[in-house]
Amino acid sequence: MSNVNEILAANEDYAAEFGDKGALSHDPARRFAIVTCMDCRLDPAKFAGLLEGDAHVIRNAGGRVTADVIRSLLISYEMLGTNEWFIIQHTHCGMQGFTNEEARARFAADAAKQGIDAVEAHYIDFMPISGTIEENLVRDVSHLRHHPLVPAAITIHGYVYDVHTGRLIVSEEAERIGAGK
Amino acid sequence: MSNVNEILAANEDYAAEFGDKGALSHDPARRFAIVTCMDCRLDPAKFAGLLEGDAHVIRNAGGRVTADVIRSLLISYEMLGTNEWFIIQHTHCGMQGFTNEEARARFAADAAKQGIDAVEAHYIDFMPISGTIEENLVRDVSHLRHHPLVPAAITIHGYVYDVHTGRLIVSEEAERIGAGK
Repeated sequence: MSNVNEILAANEDYAAEFGDKGALSHDPARRFAIVTCMDCRLDPAKFAGLLEGDAHVIRNAGGRVTADVIRSLLISYEMLGTNEWFIIQHTHCGMQGFTNEEARARFAADAAKQGIDAVEAHYIDFMPISGTIEENLVRDVSHLRHHPLVPAAITIHGYVYDVHTGRLIVSEEAERIGAGK
Repeated sequence: MSNVNEILAANEDYAAEFGDKGALSHDPARRFAIVTCMDCRLDPAKFAGLLEGDAHVIRNAGGRVTADVIRSLLISYEMLGTNEWFIIQHTHCGMQGFTNEEARARFAADAAKQGIDAVEAHYIDFMPISGTIEENLVRDVSHLRHHPLVPAAITIHGYVYDVHTGRLIVSEEAERIGAGK
């Protein structure tokens, strides 16, 4: 069966058991947001215990605090009422395995096969992660904490998810930097 | 109980039942990626039938095809082997309810109370959605289809998720534009 058919069959089952979820508010009931990686091994609703209606979930390559994540978090707070944000990066992240130059070389090598020009890859920062995940997490939490539109009333948390155990591990340094007032 | 304690208690239960998921590959087994909105009502693993290890999930405010989403999708394809991407926006999206100017006015009004300066909000495009969700979806799929680093071998799909029924509704125009070769 194709991906499309499998997804639509699963969706049919989900809709058949939808119950009263159509009445949920678009304001997160538990007033928090989670930022994490797109990694296929991570299911934040499962590993953090979220039901539909509970919380915002924002995901990108690396669970990085990019401008787009900040845009999303600011809307989450100002328009939809969250006041607590969890930045959750993870062990053995694919973003630790390469540099921007290596990524650009891969696009260049692939481009010939695909019949496309890979020059655009030189204009993209793929945001690979250097150093340890906790070092990167602390930097990202600090970057967010110091954004001029993030008020002190927001608490920012920093956790590392262990892909080998399913466990969330707190980063004390990220917590210290991310604490609100 | 605080959000932190509730999340950690749920995570304890998840880790206790983790089974053999620690052996999963970081390459998505089903070789596709889903882009969707951060909205609290959406659980893409549930509405599309994903298990841990299956697929990348990328989420931001609106499920918009931003530069950060394109960065993530390019890594998903070039580094981690996906070749089919689903852009899934949804009915009654909070991003349809305001303009950039209205968002900036809200930050300005809030800033005085928070003791911060809201000038930075004038330098952020919050990417509110104008027109219908399907018009926006078609634009976003077209934007992605025409990106110079997206090869024809990638199939791009466009769906709208109905928050009142839990159902995925295909956009024929987005599918036509997004089709690969």
